[in-house]
Amino acid sequence: MPKLWNETIEAHRRSVRDAILDVTAELVSEQGLRAVTMSQIAERAGIGRATLYKYFPDVEAILLAWHGRQITAHLAHLAEVRDQADGADGRLEAVLTAYALIARTTHGHHGTELSSFLHRDEHVGHADQHLREMIRDLLAEGAANGTLRNDVAPAELANYCLHALAAAGTLPSKAAVHRLVTVTLAGLRP
Amino acid sequence: MPKLWNETIEAHRRSVRDAILDVTAELVSEQGLRAVTMSQIAERAGIGRATLYKYFPDVEAILLAWHGRQITAHLAHLAEVRDQADGADGRLEAVLTAYALIARTTHGHHGTELSSFLHRDEHVGHADQHLREMIRDLLAEGAANGTLRNDVAPAELANYCLHALAAAGTLPSKAAVHRLVTVTLAGLRP
Repeated sequence: MPKLWNETIEAHRRSVRDAILDVTAELVSEQGLRAVTMSQIAERAGIGRATLYKYFPDVEAILLAWHGRQITAHLAHLAEVRDQADGADGRLEAVLTAYALIARTTHGHHGTELSSFLHRDEHVGHADQHLREMIRDLLAEGAANGTLRNDVAPAELANYCLHALAAAGTLPSKAAVHRLVTVTLAGLRP
Repeated sequence: MPKLWNETIEAHRRSVRDAILDVTAELVSEQGLRAVTMSQIAERAGIGRATLYKYFPDVEAILLAWHGRQITAHLAHLAEVRDQADGADGRLEAVLTAYALIARTTHGHHGTELSSFLHRDEHVGHADQHLREMIRDLLAEGAANGTLRNDVAPAELANYCLHALAAAGTLPSKAAVHRLVTVTLAGLRP
């Protein structure tokens, strides 16, 4: 049964890879980007250094893979939140709230060494584009329905939303994030 | 007349200092931060290198002085715009528009070498605090008048405004900046 065997191998490799990404993110948040070594990662992941090097050439490559996984998970979460909400208005509010909650946990570290390293990641540009398109489409739907303003292009309004909601990065509580979403949505009404 | 003589010397020193800041900002925008030398600055400012070193120890110190002068001028401009507008609503709209226009010209270079160098400048933190207080006070005035929402604290609304208006950094035209201000203000209505 060669197919099953290959699937087992593949599942094993994925779980080792995930464990490497998890422990690297942990170590970097504990010690800072420059202090983390491949040996520490191998040790905490419970694998040999030689095995680790079969997966990744260096700490930076692991962090980029971790970041790519985070971004993919965030976009998948936003799409899921959108698809589970009812009506154009409900979908927009659900996506903006979910985005602001993500921004609160991820943008709080702006200006740090890790943040400037990850900012150079080309994944960020693609994800940002994808996100803008998702929000733009929801705004266009609302403008067509008459529930949102139609005097400003949806792409411009999406740009406004993403910047306004980035304010969540400095907010102290989830309640404050919900107030920010309410204020941001109020700017979109006709 | 020792006093007048001192004033003449002081005025001369200020004009040399201003010329140094101006040519340094020009050279950095032409060539990038790392390429500019003290010799180039002295040459373009029309002074000797020895004279230049009496004013500033290195290019970074000149850029920080230039940045401090820019920030001071921007804050003075915002205060002037506020004081010349009529009514709480007029003052808020005037200040937000002026801020967005400044953000359009200064935030467009985010992610550049110059921007990350200047971001570490401690002037930025003080100016940001000053700006937040100015906008917060205008928002509190509007909330007391009943022209602005009073269900969210003025400091939180000021945070929303500054983030939303930072979207001006990527806008292609002044007309788009005015639309952004309109949308941002709509979020502040009761």
